[in-house]
Amino acid sequence: MPQFTPTGSHMRALVKTAPGVGMDLVDRPVPSIGDHDVLIKVHHAGVCGTDLHIWEWDAWAAGRLRPPVVIGHEFAGEVVDLGADARRDGLLAIGDVVTAEGHIICGHCLPCRTGHGHLCVRTQIIGVDRDGAFADYISMPASNVMGLDGIPTDIGAIMDPVGNAVHTVLEGGEVPGSTVLIIGCGPIGCFAVGVAKAAGAALVIASDFNPVRRELATMMGADHTFDPASDDVVARVREVTGGIGVDLVCEMSGHPAGHAQAFAAARPGARVNLLGTPSRTTEVDFARDIIFKGLTLYGVTGRKMYSTWIQMRRLLASGRFDPAPVVTHRFPLDRIADAIGVIKDGSAGKVILEIAT
Amino acid sequence: MPQFTPTGSHMRALVKTAPGVGMDLVDRPVPSIGDHDVLIKVHHAGVCGTDLHIWEWDAWAAGRLRPPVVIGHEFAGEVVDLGADARRDGLLAIGDVVTAEGHIICGHCLPCRTGHGHLCVRTQIIGVDRDGAFADYISMPASNVMGLDGIPTDIGAIMDPVGNAVHTVLEGGEVPGSTVLIIGCGPIGCFAVGVAKAAGAALVIASDFNPVRRELATMMGADHTFDPASDDVVARVREVTGGIGVDLVCEMSGHPAGHAQAFAAARPGARVNLLGTPSRTTEVDFARDIIFKGLTLYGVTGRKMYSTWIQMRRLLASGRFDPAPVVTHRFPLDRIADAIGVIKDGSAGKVILEIAT
Amino acid sequence: MPQFTPTGSHMRALVKTAPGVGMDLVDRPVPSIGDHDVLIKVHHAGVCGTDLHIWEWDAWAAGRLRPPVVIGHEFAGEVVDLGADARRDGLLAIGDVVTAEGHIICGHCLPCRTGHGHLCVRTQIIGVDRDGAFADYISMPASNVMGLDGIPTDIGAIMDPVGNAVHTVLEGGEVPGSTVLIIGCGPIGCFAVGVAKAAGAALVIASDFNPVRRELATMMGADHTFDPASDDVVARVREVTGGIGVDLVCEMSGHPAGHAQAFAAARPGARVNLLGTPSRTTEVDFARDIIFKGLTLYGVTGRKMYSTWIQMRRLLASGRFDPAPVVTHRFPLDRIADAIGVIKDGSAGKVILEIAT
Amino acid sequence: MPQFTPTGSHMRALVKTAPGVGMDLVDRPVPSIGDHDVLIKVHHAGVCGTDLHIWEWDAWAAGRLRPPVVIGHEFAGEVVDLGADARRDGLLAIGDVVTAEGHIICGHCLPCRTGHGHLCVRTQIIGVDRDGAFADYISMPASNVMGLDGIPTDIGAIMDPVGNAVHTVLEGGEVPGSTVLIIGCGPIGCFAVGVAKAAGAALVIASDFNPVRRELATMMGADHTFDPASDDVVARVREVTGGIGVDLVCEMSGHPAGHAQAFAAARPGARVNLLGTPSRTTEVDFARDIIFKGLTLYGVTGRKMYSTWIQMRRLLASGRFDPAPVVTHRFPLDRIADAIGVIKDGSAGKVILEIAT
Repeated sequence: MPQFTPTGSHMRALVKTAPGVGMDLVDRPVPSIGDHDVLIKVHHAGVCGTDLHIWEWDAWAAGRLRPPVVIGHEFAGEVVDLGADARRDGLLAIGDVVTAEGHIICGHCLPCRTGHGHLCVRTQIIGVDRDGAFADYISMPASNVMGLDGIPTDIGAIMDPVGNAVHTVLEGGEVPGSTVLIIGCGPIGCFAVGVAKAAGAALVIASDFNPVRRELATMMGADHTFDPASDDVVARVREVTGGIGVDLVCEMSGHPAGHAQAFAAARPGARVNLLGTPSRTTEVDFARDIIFKGLTLYGVTGRKMYSTWIQMRRLLASGRFDPAPVVTHRFPLDRIADAIGVIKDGSAGKVILEIAT
Repeated sequence: MPQFTPTGSHMRALVKTAPGVGMDLVDRPVPSIGDHDVLIKVHHAGVCGTDLHIWEWDAWAAGRLRPPVVIGHEFAGEVVDLGADARRDGLLAIGDVVTAEGHIICGHCLPCRTGHGHLCVRTQIIGVDRDGAFADYISMPASNVMGLDGIPTDIGAIMDPVGNAVHTVLEGGEVPGSTVLIIGCGPIGCFAVGVAKAAGAALVIASDFNPVRRELATMMGADHTFDPASDDVVARVREVTGGIGVDLVCEMSGHPAGHAQAFAAARPGARVNLLGTPSRTTEVDFARDIIFKGLTLYGVTGRKMYSTWIQMRRLLASGRFDPAPVVTHRFPLDRIADAIGVIKDGSAGKVILEIAT
Repeated sequence: MPQFTPTGSHMRALVKTAPGVGMDLVDRPVPSIGDHDVLIKVHHAGVCGTDLHIWEWDAWAAGRLRPPVVIGHEFAGEVVDLGADARRDGLLAIGDVVTAEGHIICGHCLPCRTGHGHLCVRTQIIGVDRDGAFADYISMPASNVMGLDGIPTDIGAIMDPVGNAVHTVLEGGEVPGSTVLIIGCGPIGCFAVGVAKAAGAALVIASDFNPVRRELATMMGADHTFDPASDDVVARVREVTGGIGVDLVCEMSGHPAGHAQAFAAARPGARVNLLGTPSRTTEVDFARDIIFKGLTLYGVTGRKMYSTWIQMRRLLASGRFDPAPVVTHRFPLDRIADAIGVIKDGSAGKVILEIAT
Repeated sequence: MPQFTPTGSHMRALVKTAPGVGMDLVDRPVPSIGDHDVLIKVHHAGVCGTDLHIWEWDAWAAGRLRPPVVIGHEFAGEVVDLGADARRDGLLAIGDVVTAEGHIICGHCLPCRTGHGHLCVRTQIIGVDRDGAFADYISMPASNVMGLDGIPTDIGAIMDPVGNAVHTVLEGGEVPGSTVLIIGCGPIGCFAVGVAKAAGAALVIASDFNPVRRELATMMGADHTFDPASDDVVARVREVTGGIGVDLVCEMSGHPAGHAQAFAAARPGARVNLLGTPSRTTEVDFARDIIFKGLTLYGVTGRKMYSTWIQMRRLLASGRFDPAPVVTHRFPLDRIADAIGVIKDGSAGKVILEIAT
């Protein structure tokens, strides 16, 4: 990939230009903005497992993306222009340091009308269904934009996955004084460990096969970390919870074995919040695992718009929760291949692109 | 089975006397009562699918029951004696017409201590783990007994399964004005139809293969009934819900096909309350069916002790909900084989034993 | 007030033209619409107690309204034009029969962002802060508009106050099988009686000094009506609730005596939802009435946007709840003085203006 | 008060022997225990504002207590004997280090049956309605006893008021990431500051006239403390919350001025949990302060039995919350007059009696 500096109304952008593996760093016009939009100069962007799927052009990506598309859905930066209506609202101004929810929703469907905008039936995701944030500039609807309240842009850039963790941990509302098991310590699992600790969990247990990830979970405050390869996770969870199991399981692995552990390690009447996206089906013994235990399961999509964002912004701005230890790698835009590489080989926590400073 | 009349301190009882098929009508001493117990003369008892399992001595029954055990866990009758402490409490009196929760719980475990007594880790069920109600008399802890407030004993005798329906329909708390799908129209499914209507559901849809059961569901107020053998249930549900699916699914079939329909017919953000007890595992596509739809699943065990009972008693005593149309058969105690027979052949709704009048 | 027929782009409108008592029926241009607005031809409109305050130009009205303002915030009618963006959304079309939420909110403040749009800090109310619905046409933001799903426009016109009742009764989520006391049987109190019955309340008690209103409450399904002038309301409530008081009180009177009855008639752990707007302060014994009883109080503003509307539309469209008996008077637009008169003298239930047919 | 050592089956006890000021340290028989009771040797006990009322024999005390009564309702110690049923249950054993809920409830009334045992209509409080804990031994129902899981008895002795704080702060379930105002920094207010911090509040503000108490609040983690004598508390709260007010107010003062501040400092849609027991009425502007703001108020009685206890025990045992800094004074049993004195003169945080070691 050649390096270049955009000039005038041009910019750099990482684009899936055609079906197939990889992304191209190309010269693109700076996006135009509509009346309700703002133009944001991107400072930092987060690289996500979804971006790996897109890079590799797996079945999901091939079925969903329509190239050419600018990739990237996690970012933070600075407002540099506003559409007429956004300007008139007076809620955002040039120079504001911001991040944004990447799900652009219709506002009219039943979920949107009843407080479940994160489940909008017409959701468009930036970097997937429309142009994204691995670029010098992005146009966003003003209503999706959140001021950072002093949070730096490298942390602001990862509020999408941090918000996944906040949504997963706090849905159900009974974390203070509770016992929590996090299954899967990828970046969102590690964030979840920190969120559970910040929210007053009395005991946070984390499990992952990867020792690097277990180490990150410990740094984020896990009281115990277990390795499913050598530990009987369910037995160990029972052991450290007086024999009964945990109040809350956050399932971040998406693996059938993770589901089985989740149901077995949950105490009667517990809650299991599921975020990890499986690539296959799981055999579930509903009688033994869900019905006789009186479990509540909840499928986590995105972030609640915008109660999750408000909670998260305060947790971050107040310093109650700091996701920084999870960020292990930073690359410039033209080293996207390296960023994808460290995600793929499992050596990374969270990976950030440094786009402008 | 020979008929006889108990004399003195003896009574009739339907007993699983030894491993194997069937039950015996035998002469037994009237049970003694402890300080906290009451002795109840049984007027009516309900026959449940569980009793069919016990009759047939299936794997579950063989693994759980320790003969000899008096069978039967659904009943209502009249208080005829009280233990010393129960008498001193002054809350029950001889002559009170009552029913009782058949789950006897420890009161000390974590679920018991946190408002989830129905999930007590030391639950003993009458008619399964200790002597039950298919008899002239039963001893029950006073704290399990509920006055009937004018509800007749033939209806009081089925408050256990009616309570299952109340628990399944009302858990989640948003039934008024909602759309509800009931999958499986056995007695509890039919009760659930009526409870949903009584609770102000705007649309109640019921599905079952059995035309007798669909007819009962219609009598209980279902707005639509579908036959999975000839209807595309999910398509029909979408059709009558403006294309989006229902707010609440009550899964009463316990069948993998029922689970699949439940998840597919639920709108994004919906709740699926599962009561039907599967005899096998179900393959679940968590990504498509639970996570991306943001569903909440809840496993229903028994009745909340005792908020479900309070709600139910008021719904019944006020006439807001009448389960009587679901009661299709009544037999005396010595015709238990006939009662089991009509349950087994699918021709019955709810079946009641008439024990005393 | 002279009668006239608007011609061309003119229309009739009831306008508070200047400070002082009354309203004038005047000739006004048909409103223009912005990109996100729709133009609605008004068929029916509801007259509210607020309109009486405005007519009489009391202290509240004098402090809030800036004449000239077209009055009226409850209405239903037909879409006759759409702005460019509203047209492009494709969710509304010319000819659609609709009503609308009259609170126009900012979408950006903390309440708006966290699912409490009805508490928006920048709310503008039609007929109060901007031109309203007592006119042949009104311009409304498309996002405030609700299709009527077959509900006739005379009922659609009163969904604002019906929604107040739905919000007041259903907030808390435990109406099925509960005992409910409605204090104050003005139109919203009478609607609340019907909503509570539709939602499965086991016992609905209503109290009002006015015999006409008590009669309406009975027609809407109240199990008991009490007259505070001759009944000891609290004692009677205890009598019909087994001595303990009700689960839910809906306080619709706004009177200190109503508050006192509400707290005294509520059982320990009950909920008191307050909608009636007091014109003075109330002395509250927090220790005896709120703290030692463990009560929850909730102040009801407007309707939840838009979960209340969705619930209400389904209750109305399904026929589960019919507010028609509460509508006692209908007048043409030029008889507003008569409409105000019957509200003021207490002889009316709900009063409707018939504007077009 | 003479000192003495109990011998044989006698013990020391602080007793309100007759109406009037003070308490007497007297020789009493060690209490007998019933079948369901346990005998506890008291190690530490907490002195509460209620004990001050009893000491001073104010109107409330004179109306409620029936001397002679052993005073004291906050304690921890060691199990030294068990009744027959308690022994058979096997859940407690001689030597267990425990505390206990001091509200002894009936288990049968509507609140008890529906998960609101803390609102039991037949509650008996130890040290008020029956003999209490300022003694060498106390008899308690086994079901009221909680094992301390390693928490020392001086902290275990104050779990009653710590539980008040946990109940007040956590009721509503949305503390993580929220903004909280604590009005009144007596011991329970100071505990509440610490609980809110432990539960992940992003901002905790405390207000009190007393500089000693403000200092304790700061030690417990308050981000801001305000003095109502010199600070405009409402204005300062708005200033540090971006102009909108807090999400949660914990009203611990019981003073009308505290109520006014609570309602004014709460943001639209906020929750106000009230624990401080007023000795007089408060004038409330329901329209302005509760209804138009959409507030939820909740009256806090005691501790939820036993979900509050479970949460609290875990917060304490895990070290997530440490109330020790609030404990400012410790006295032996025979210096009760000094203990009462430092509470009365406002120089104390929490005061503990050291009874056995």
